[in-house]
Amino acid sequence: MKDDDYMKLAIELAKATMGQTNPNPVVGAVVVNNGEVVGMGAHLRAGEAHAEVHALQMAGERAKGATIYVTLEPCSHYGKTPPCADLVVKKGIKRAVIASLDPNPLVSGKGIERMKAAGISVETGILKEEADALNKIFFHYIKTKIPYVTLKTASSLDGKTATVTGDSKWITGEQARLDVHQLRHQHDAILVGVQTVIADNPSLTTRLPGGGKHPIRIVLDASLRIPEECTLLNDGEAPTWIITGNNIDPEKAGRLRNSFVEIFPLPTEKIDIKEALTFLGEKGVTSLLVEGGSTVHGSFLKAGRFNQMISYVAPKLIGGKEAPTLFGGEGIPNINEAVQLKIQSVEYVGDDLKLTAVPLEGERNVYGNY
Amino acid sequence: MKDDDYMKLAIELAKATMGQTNPNPVVGAVVVNNGEVVGMGAHLRAGEAHAEVHALQMAGERAKGATIYVTLEPCSHYGKTPPCADLVVKKGIKRAVIASLDPNPLVSGKGIERMKAAGISVETGILKEEADALNKIFFHYIKTKIPYVTLKTASSLDGKTATVTGDSKWITGEQARLDVHQLRHQHDAILVGVQTVIADNPSLTTRLPGGGKHPIRIVLDASLRIPEECTLLNDGEAPTWIITGNNIDPEKAGRLRNSFVEIFPLPTEKIDIKEALTFLGEKGVTSLLVEGGSTVHGSFLKAGRFNQMISYVAPKLIGGKEAPTLFGGEGIPNINEAVQLKIQSVEYVGDDLKLTAVPLEGERNVYGNY
Repeated sequence: MKDDDYMKLAIELAKATMGQTNPNPVVGAVVVNNGEVVGMGAHLRAGEAHAEVHALQMAGERAKGATIYVTLEPCSHYGKTPPCADLVVKKGIKRAVIASLDPNPLVSGKGIERMKAAGISVETGILKEEADALNKIFFHYIKTKIPYVTLKTASSLDGKTATVTGDSKWITGEQARLDVHQLRHQHDAILVGVQTVIADNPSLTTRLPGGGKHPIRIVLDASLRIPEECTLLNDGEAPTWIITGNNIDPEKAGRLRNSFVEIFPLPTEKIDIKEALTFLGEKGVTSLLVEGGSTVHGSFLKAGRFNQMISYVAPKLIGGKEAPTLFGGEGIPNINEAVQLKIQSVEYVGDDLKLTAVPLEGERNVYGNY
Repeated sequence: MKDDDYMKLAIELAKATMGQTNPNPVVGAVVVNNGEVVGMGAHLRAGEAHAEVHALQMAGERAKGATIYVTLEPCSHYGKTPPCADLVVKKGIKRAVIASLDPNPLVSGKGIERMKAAGISVETGILKEEADALNKIFFHYIKTKIPYVTLKTASSLDGKTATVTGDSKWITGEQARLDVHQLRHQHDAILVGVQTVIADNPSLTTRLPGGGKHPIRIVLDASLRIPEECTLLNDGEAPTWIITGNNIDPEKAGRLRNSFVEIFPLPTEKIDIKEALTFLGEKGVTSLLVEGGSTVHGSFLKAGRFNQMISYVAPKLIGGKEAPTLFGGEGIPNINEAVQLKIQSVEYVGDDLKLTAVPLEGERNVYGNY
């Protein structure tokens, strides 16, 4: 086995824990001594041992003189656990192979320095792209303090989100709808426009056969038009945050607030997407699933504020010049101003297709400040 | 090797000749004697020898007592060549394995009867689905006398065919556009609405690096609004047929007709898609590539008259509530009335996606009268 193979194994270990380590990244580690795997580990849950700790514990005495493969640079600081770089040194590791660097610019490279200073031979960048992809949300948030935004759309093959009369139940099949609940589980928060609340009165909870985590439910509602009797304000299933402009009825706001409903007015009359995202980042929201409708999607498109788009496409034709489509708003005048994406994957989900695409800009610059 | 393996080989032989046997079907044949392949052949070009003839010729004396695998039932009638069923009998074949039956209801099964009457053991239906797919256009036309209709669309990931200002050059990339020229080469005729001619003045020819066959260029133009100076009426590169309603300016019609331009008024004022297709079938058009625009696509959707849809989807977002989409017209009021398709394949063509989908009805009933 070569370095790549051991790192692939470490990546598999990390991948198995995706969704359970929040707000921490997923990390996998493998210890190899004289061609023999002697330790394997992954970070399982925030507050618990890091991947290196598990792997080195399994290796025991055989860590001495061994090589450790880690998907993410070992930490160099005291958090809820002691620094892993120190443990690697203490256990007598001779060589360390690392995929991703720590995304935090304040500590990035410090774990490596510490190991190098102790005489360990360190190599970085092995399968970096795959390892970075595991923690794309975590890395994005650490670098930008703004949530990682997923635009989710569901349409017919001809790009319609409803018929001309507004009928939209159901365009996609049961399996695709279940997949959306998996997305809700994976994101810290879900966002819709008030028009969706008025039209559909959704609950926006996660409903998976084996349970799942409800996202914080966020409504963009500049002038606080949300109906008082709607599910989101009354079911108590998960926090509901209403983001408004600065010109709302204070009495209505007072009536709506309760143990799970909060109202957050932004400083302008209309809601600026960038401002809303900065606010959500400050509140600790690391990932945001934008479910629409088309006006909200249009705003995110216009603001250029999203990191991936997940489109469910049903093998149906709806037609109709006036039937609603994915993005509302004005749109661009010239093709060469179109937002360029890269399609990362295409999967069948039941009879429907699931397309995952990322803005080209975002792909080039995973750590970038948008 | 089993029956399936030999038939797969026969299908490969047939597949290699796709596009060159028009108006005949593609056919492959393999002769096997005592576990040894002794003959292989395919029909290469209309008017030339059938697949069985080539395969039996290669087999020579060793055809005696052998098994023949043919993708399509051997013919029983004198056409440009003598009946293959007779040749199979004459050569002393002992067993015949056949995938597809002859699609022509007047002769279907007769080749088999003839062989059975001569004491040959005949099995049918082996890999029928794969073999039928090779000749889907041929079978459809033979059964219905109506062209096999391919709807071709090109859009952004959000289902737009142009920006709100009408800019549509170019949504898809160069490789996708080249792929469209391959489609033009494979279809007998191409069809657009007069609005596309007015807006884009296209040439609708096949422009492939290695050459290619131009389709007959058909314009749906109910009231003969086509601009007299447009390319289609003046370049002489391929026949141009204008299908009109019954209320057109006879003087203009007279001026437009020339050595390659024909005008065909249908009996009603507006063009009925079904009527137009029946007419084209009578004129011998076996396959039709519908390139749009959205009004024409909408008419075919409304009429339910298409056999497959090929959608090129570019990884771009255009947005705009008013930007044009794939299908114009009224559309359906309720989701449960949507045209149900089955996505048959998804391929990358350059950076773009190519989706091929067929109406579920059409899939269930390949031979059906629509």
